[in-house]
Amino acid sequence: MTNMSESIIKESQPFRLRVSCHLKFDIEFPTPFILMLRPRSGMQQWIEKEEYIITPSIPVVEFTDSYGNLCQRLVAPVGLFSITTISEVVTADSIDQDFGAPFVDIQCLPEAVLPYLLPSRYCESDCFNEMAMQITDGKELGYDQVAAITDWLRANVSYVPGSNSESLSAIEVNNKMSGVCIDLAHLGIALCRGLSIPAHIAVGYLFELKPMDMHAWFEAYIGGRWYTFDATQDGTQRGYVTLGLGRDAADVAVFNQFGPSVFPLEHVVSVENIT
Amino acid sequence: MTNMSESIIKESQPFRLRVSCHLKFDIEFPTPFILMLRPRSGMQQWIEKEEYIITPSIPVVEFTDSYGNLCQRLVAPVGLFSITTISEVVTADSIDQDFGAPFVDIQCLPEAVLPYLLPSRYCESDCFNEMAMQITDGKELGYDQVAAITDWLRANVSYVPGSNSESLSAIEVNNKMSGVCIDLAHLGIALCRGLSIPAHIAVGYLFELKPMDMHAWFEAYIGGRWYTFDATQDGTQRGYVTLGLGRDAADVAVFNQFGPSVFPLEHVVSVENIT
Amino acid sequence: MTNMSESIIKESQPFRLRVSCHLKFDIEFPTPFILMLRPRSGMQQWIEKEEYIITPSIPVVEFTDSYGNLCQRLVAPVGLFSITTISEVVTADSIDQDFGAPFVDIQCLPEAVLPYLLPSRYCESDCFNEMAMQITDGKELGYDQVAAITDWLRANVSYVPGSNSESLSAIEVNNKMSGVCIDLAHLGIALCRGLSIPAHIAVGYLFELKPMDMHAWFEAYIGGRWYTFDATQDGTQRGYVTLGLGRDAADVAVFNQFGPSVFPLEHVVSVENIT
Amino acid sequence: MTNMSESIIKESQPFRLRVSCHLKFDIEFPTPFILMLRPRSGMQQWIEKEEYIITPSIPVVEFTDSYGNLCQRLVAPVGLFSITTISEVVTADSIDQDFGAPFVDIQCLPEAVLPYLLPSRYCESDCFNEMAMQITDGKELGYDQVAAITDWLRANVSYVPGSNSESLSAIEVNNKMSGVCIDLAHLGIALCRGLSIPAHIAVGYLFELKPMDMHAWFEAYIGGRWYTFDATQDGTQRGYVTLGLGRDAADVAVFNQFGPSVFPLEHVVSVENIT
Repeated sequence: MTNMSESIIKESQPFRLRVSCHLKFDIEFPTPFILMLRPRSGMQQWIEKEEYIITPSIPVVEFTDSYGNLCQRLVAPVGLFSITTISEVVTADSIDQDFGAPFVDIQCLPEAVLPYLLPSRYCESDCFNEMAMQITDGKELGYDQVAAITDWLRANVSYVPGSNSESLSAIEVNNKMSGVCIDLAHLGIALCRGLSIPAHIAVGYLFELKPMDMHAWFEAYIGGRWYTFDATQDGTQRGYVTLGLGRDAADVAVFNQFGPSVFPLEHVVSVENIT
Repeated sequence: MTNMSESIIKESQPFRLRVSCHLKFDIEFPTPFILMLRPRSGMQQWIEKEEYIITPSIPVVEFTDSYGNLCQRLVAPVGLFSITTISEVVTADSIDQDFGAPFVDIQCLPEAVLPYLLPSRYCESDCFNEMAMQITDGKELGYDQVAAITDWLRANVSYVPGSNSESLSAIEVNNKMSGVCIDLAHLGIALCRGLSIPAHIAVGYLFELKPMDMHAWFEAYIGGRWYTFDATQDGTQRGYVTLGLGRDAADVAVFNQFGPSVFPLEHVVSVENIT
Repeated sequence: MTNMSESIIKESQPFRLRVSCHLKFDIEFPTPFILMLRPRSGMQQWIEKEEYIITPSIPVVEFTDSYGNLCQRLVAPVGLFSITTISEVVTADSIDQDFGAPFVDIQCLPEAVLPYLLPSRYCESDCFNEMAMQITDGKELGYDQVAAITDWLRANVSYVPGSNSESLSAIEVNNKMSGVCIDLAHLGIALCRGLSIPAHIAVGYLFELKPMDMHAWFEAYIGGRWYTFDATQDGTQRGYVTLGLGRDAADVAVFNQFGPSVFPLEHVVSVENIT
Repeated sequence: MTNMSESIIKESQPFRLRVSCHLKFDIEFPTPFILMLRPRSGMQQWIEKEEYIITPSIPVVEFTDSYGNLCQRLVAPVGLFSITTISEVVTADSIDQDFGAPFVDIQCLPEAVLPYLLPSRYCESDCFNEMAMQITDGKELGYDQVAAITDWLRANVSYVPGSNSESLSAIEVNNKMSGVCIDLAHLGIALCRGLSIPAHIAVGYLFELKPMDMHAWFEAYIGGRWYTFDATQDGTQRGYVTLGLGRDAADVAVFNQFGPSVFPLEHVVSVENIT
């Protein structure tokens, strides 16, 4: 789906970040996990160094899910169990903005993009066509519509940093008119899909996020490529590092755990400029 | 993901059905469609004959989606537009029941099955663990749990034949305690996933369905294979023909249409025994 | 990898063919087969009707291989065993020729096309760069190079209709300077890849092929799409129906059979114009 | 295709290696490369740390090929150009041997394994059935056959450390009766496939290889999993780290380069025990 000519890490001014995530659990019963903590090199980032330390050392199997994310499966043993991942990443030193980039007709979308037109667990896009039409009234089809949606979210939905125990769906966010980063992204995605613009969620790191934590934003497919949008920031930020892409929060949990719930004793995220 | 030894079309007593679907639209504006109307030969069915007639004759592109379904893309031209598909299918003459088939530990599930553990648009499985535990209390892990869930649906959720304009999610079905076939399947799936049993939706045809229409049911992954469950029927029926598999209704629309809504002038479904 | 706008079945003048293949075997030991006898609807053909009859009726599993071909697995039982497939196909009423279509830089090729740059069992493209440079000397990069290769094959390699028991590799064809259809395709592919032009083999049917049999030709990726080339014909023919695509003959056997060799008692191919 | 229960990195006695590869080129013309230098965590290895430094820093796109390997695409700019990769890997402290592990019937093989039954560029397995039958005469079907093939290679084909500029195919190795590591692997693979045992090539690192260099060996699918075989070693070695898997050398080049040939000024490989 990609070719070199679309790469948006420009040669000039590489921007280097060291990102890390540390999780520690106290496990009572052997517990299966699926983790999504190894960033992939892709169009918009290049992983130069990486560590992925699991303590104690146990068998882990890595696989690629249907969205292209690297996932790690393991069964955490009883006792203290920790995961530490550190990556040094070259990323874009600004996010691309491209007003005027055109809407892609459904019949011209690549097949791999089609699933991102459909409603999903937290993005009930089937319910948002009318609202999306109103928000984007008068806008040129494509980038300008998504920019209008993002502006509308910034102006109207209160961004509450931190993380919910449970994600809100687009409908819930639209009722509550506030949410954490992933909730705003859900509403943004649902509005895009309501206009037949493919949109997906991204989770990962953001430089200078305050307070520092895992972050979520969304990407929309316009003019033949994916663009980054983030209603929680002012739109001029830089330093996104993606850990996972998917239809919504259900696809991109940094960890999925099965059986009786376990909660991290420690969950430390950091992002540091090492340019 | 499959091998011959798992095929459940037994040599003895093949059961042959002729299934057909006819759709007719009056199109006002050129309208992109994605159709899912070509059944695939698979573990549980073999397509012997097939017709797929589009009138007028226009360009169509077929692709395989990430669930393995054959999908057809086209742009319907202005005017009368019709689709007629007819298939002759060898299918199982009974659905397999296998009480005692064991729950598969998360760490032993094939990767391709993992997405069916996660919540999706209409199956908010993250909300159904407790309810699923109650319904299956005392049951052996695996097939017996899913059978208990299906029995509970049969006994407690009113099945209203016909089709909604909009699907209900598991939460909505659980509030309303009634629904069409796909609604019951959504609740069944959410309850299975709530127990960490992979479950997906199937849409297609069912022999002697009354009244005849497209149908939906669900499959659960137990003991290393998928089993069919259908809370709208008494459990001894035969003659399922699958058109599409997916996480829920959002993935398996027989037709997805983009732009201003169009509704079929005609929508005729038939299933005939030709054994 | 495809979108509707690339479809090359034009609305005007649909060309309809009924193609069929009949195979009959006398099986001594239960014998596993993998068949590739169900044409897929794609960019260049639309399957309107289809039959796939296996006698006696036995379990069959169908899957999609990594090239996108539909494949059928079965174990043929002892005794007479036959396969009859019939398809009615809308295909292009001429093959596209596009002199001047440009070479695509390696870095701009879609990922899915990259495997078709590499040498394969019967296309030792690593040995053909120099020869390909000579044949295409002075030609514009892209379509004109592949047209020159095809012309060179037509002029220099004797086409012997019929089928070998064993395919010849490009090196062998280049030594022998004669071959059946698939042999010429192998040399054409090796020469294209020798120029870093992606090329793959196609097997299937050709209208008015003399004598009628299964046929093979090749496709090259130029200017962002696949074009058909066939050195066994004069280049103005129409009526290609593809059964399988792959790197070379090793990937696209109409039937692969394992264990002691069995040979068809009957192998009948027909193509009929039903426009 | 994998599940945790098949993981063969045992909890006890983890064996840790630091492996590295350094390549340096002097580029005359902008040159497209496809690299395969990032090992993936999988069933048999876990990547704890990793560096992938490209100098000068240029855009790179990473993708997963159809065999599951991580590949890196870039266009090397004119001038000195270097790549340095370093990984710290937990690997098995011995390779599994399992005499008696059974042959898997064709009809029971997973689909993803089927391509490894077919002949490929350097493994003309269609020509090796008879020879494979002789070498394995009297052996139990499965692991014991592949062990017999490997023993036969060790006893009969001279292993010449170092690397050819060009790989030899199985037929060529069988004529010459000597070869580098990848040549012996080609003959081993062709003999396995000649017996309908799926076999693929692996390239990567081997601890204490003398002289140190990139290495190649093969894996055969027996008793439901892949086993490692290496005719260049005595069979009791440990410390394999896989960079790429594929049908043969054509699929797993550590670097593929397009356009006028460039050769590394420096190519340094190292493997160090850091347990």
